[in-house]
This record gives sequence, structure tokens and C-alpha cells, in this order.
Amino acid sequence: MKESRPLILVTNDDGISAPGIKALIEVMNTIGEVIVVAPDKPQSAMGHAITINNTLYLDKISNENDSIDQYSCSGTPVDCVKFAVNEILKRKPDLCVSGINHGSNSSINVIYSGTMSAAVEAGIEGIPAIGFSLSDFGWNADFEPVKSFVKKIVLQTLKNKLPDGVILNVNFPKLKENEIKGIKVCRQAKAYYAQKFDKRQTPFGKDYYWLAGEFINQDKGEDTDEWALENGYISVVPVQFDLTAHHTIQQLNNWNLNE
Amino acid sequence: MKESRPLILVTNDDGISAPGIKALIEVMNTIGEVIVVAPDKPQSAMGHAITINNTLYLDKISNENDSIDQYSCSGTPVDCVKFAVNEILKRKPDLCVSGINHGSNSSINVIYSGTMSAAVEAGIEGIPAIGFSLSDFGWNADFEPVKSFVKKIVLQTLKNKLPDGVILNVNFPKLKENEIKGIKVCRQAKAYYAQKFDKRQTPFGKDYYWLAGEFINQDKGEDTDEWALENGYISVVPVQFDLTAHHTIQQLNNWNLNE
Repeated sequence: MKESRPLILVTNDDGISAPGIKALIEVMNTIGEVIVVAPDKPQSAMGHAITINNTLYLDKISNENDSIDQYSCSGTPVDCVKFAVNEILKRKPDLCVSGINHGSNSSINVIYSGTMSAAVEAGIEGIPAIGFSLSDFGWNADFEPVKSFVKKIVLQTLKNKLPDGVILNVNFPKLKENEIKGIKVCRQAKAYYAQKFDKRQTPFGKDYYWLAGEFINQDKGEDTDEWALENGYISVVPVQFDLTAHHTIQQLNNWNLNE
Repeated sequence: MKESRPLILVTNDDGISAPGIKALIEVMNTIGEVIVVAPDKPQSAMGHAITINNTLYLDKISNENDSIDQYSCSGTPVDCVKFAVNEILKRKPDLCVSGINHGSNSSINVIYSGTMSAAVEAGIEGIPAIGFSLSDFGWNADFEPVKSFVKKIVLQTLKNKLPDGVILNVNFPKLKENEIKGIKVCRQAKAYYAQKFDKRQTPFGKDYYWLAGEFINQDKGEDTDEWALENGYISVVPVQFDLTAHHTIQQLNNWNLNE
């Protein structure tokens, strides 16, 4: 009975033609009714950007004979989720999955990641959501080893229900399936990028730059996602969009802000 | 003695020519040594986007006779902070201020906001940071009534030191100076956008869309930023970039993820 299968929205930030989203669609198709709304081009590192100063295009790229409805959108990953929920779908999906990203979104990368921002947007709109990423930036990254884990995590999420306002950030190490030691619930490691700008010149003599740099992990905690990934585990970080540092409110109330 | 004055990085997301950043520069100039690195065009709602698939341009737009060094950057607000810290400045600034934004960044807007993402990026890089926003989208918004409050909050921040990993999200109501009731430390109100897409046609007959919609505040708490602003207060929300929902880790560990 098709009606009782969960409705699953699939998106990503590498664009609708990326191998990672194809792998995710394949797995989701074994679980529920799937609809795809994804960027028409790579939108990596777009964070939670939305398009408010420009026009947006939405194209249905599947036809009547396709088993899955697929749409490409000219906007960001977050725009895609907004289109799906507010313009395309007749009812709220039971789950939104984003990815599988070509490249890790562990630690501070969660904040730059279009993959995770799409999932977080679904969470803001009240939809259970998971972002999946593989620690392999290659376009020919091998997603076979992680498919069974993607399925397990999705089924557990549908069964157990996510806590309110929480989205899962799932990262896979680049390993063979039998080398993966298991799944660990983690916290986000404290890290940052020591950025270097690669300065070059246009053929016309004007300086330009490429953003480059090195990931610096300052946090060796064995409860972090970085530790899990380095030690052969899949990391699952519960992520929230209430950014309030609640534990500091009392301290700030001691400042003389009103004197 | 110029050497003992704090070094203050000023940025925004409305672009370097916005009246809001000019007001912020004017106030910061009374407190410390100021350097400006801001987008060369409006970059509203860019969230924490960074430019990794494209080139970046950086232009010094001040000259030797100007008292303040100003740079414009072709990238996002977060790119601007990365340029300032990693390419332009010889030492880490004592403070980064972003804004004053033309428009509110209270509640869930913090996550879409380029203004706040620039401040958060400074926080990630270990720099005390504050984002300022005025609840008035107009280009001719009046920043006079809030200047004294900007100065007070900056001086209190320099004096008291921010808690580790915390950035301040300051929002001003659109009121006259003597109508403002005071400054309140708040939590982020739980809210979202009920998005509507405004569908139009190009002169060539192709459908396109504008993102539009309505802000829905589901949270009437008197400890929220929305309540403060609606009741004539300036809201100050401590914001963090550790997105881990720490309080849910124990619950997730009860799922059968490894069976």
C-alpha cells in the first residue's frame, strides 16, 4: 500500500546530477515514496544562504514514466527545501534527507555546509531531517560501503522519532563496509580553518584570490565526531537551530548594560 | 596613544556603501582603531556561505589620506572576515562588529543572516564579536537613536569579555532614543517562515519565482528577543557555533544504531 509508505524529500548541495544524491535516492526508494528537489548546479559551502535578491527557477526534470518526481532549482540547498515544502508537496514529508555529500561535514564544517543547512531548514519547518556526508571529495567517491548504514539510520529515525528541534549530522569515514567499526553518537569537535588565500593574477594583470587553508582540530575529545571518524566509526551529531548559548545568559545579566 | 586603543574590524552584509555600516564605523572610531572589510555589493541572507567554487577580489578603497583603512571584497560576509583576519591584518583584532544591518536579525533570522554569520565567523576564529541590526529595512533607516547603545554594548563587551565561543546578536527596535526602554539579555524566539513563492513569467514566457512569505512566531516567552523588541527593548542574544544538541545525546544513545 503506497499510501502507508513514508514520504521522503531528498536534496543535497552537490547538485542534482551528483553520484552522492543518486546513491541516496536509491536507498530511500527501498523505504518510502521519494521526491527529489535539488540544486541545478554545485552549491557547496553555501551555508544557510537563501535567495532574496534574485529570481528563482524550478524545473521538473522527471516525466510521467519516471517512478520518482525530480525537480531542479536554480537556488541554494535551503531554497530547494523551501520550494519542496511550500510549493511542490501537498503534505509535509515524513523525513528530509540531504546528501550524500562528497566530502566530510563533521565538526565546524556543519556551519558552512549546504548539505547540512538544507537538513536544518527542514528541521526549522518541523520535518525530521538527516544530512549524510562521506569523507571523500571525489566525484567518483564510492558510496556502496555506506548504503546499508544510511538505511539503518533512516529506519531508526523513523521508528524512534527525533527529539524536537534536532537534526542528525551523519558523517561516514572513507572505509570499506567491513572496516567500519560502528555508529557513534558524538558532539561536534571544536575546530576551525587556518585560512590562506592563494593570490593569482588574471590575464589582464588584476589580482584575484582562491580561498584555501588548513583544518585545525583543537579538540582531542573521544566523544567528538572527529575522533569517531579517525577511529573508523560513523559519527552522528544531533544538531540544533536554537543558537542561544543558554548557559551564558546569567553571566551576561551581570554586565552593566542598563546603567 | 594609538597603540593602546583596541583594534576593531567592521563588516556587514548590506555592502560597504550602506548607511548602516557608516553609522557603525562612526561609533567605532570613537572607541578604537578601525579597519573595514565589507562586501562590494549587498549580500543579505547569505548565511554562513563561503566562496570555494569561484575567484575572489579584494580592493583597497581608502587612500593614504584616509584615517580608516577600508577594503571591499567580492565575496560573502564570511569571506570578508576570513580576508581581514588571514590576509590583511597583522594581528588578531580585539573585536569584530558587523552591521548595523538594515532589518531585524532576531529569532530564526540569525541563521539566514549574513550580518550575524560574519560575526559568528569572527567568533570561530577566536575574536570577540557582535552583530548589530535595526528593525528597519529601509535604506534611509535612522541609525541616530541607536548609536549611544551601540557604544555602550561595545564598551561593556571590551570590559567584561565574552564567554568562550559566544557572539552577541543585538537587535534594535525602530524607536526614538527616548522611547527605548533598555537592554534585555534574551534567548532566540522559536519561529519560522511560512514561505510563499510569488510566481511570475519572464518576457519570454518562462516561469520564475520570488521567495516571499510570512514570519511566524510560535513563542510568546517574555525571555525571547521577539518579546523584547515588541515591548520597546533592545535584545541581546548570546549565540554559539557549537550546534550540538548536547541534551539529546543520551536519548540518541538508546537507539539501536549498532544492532
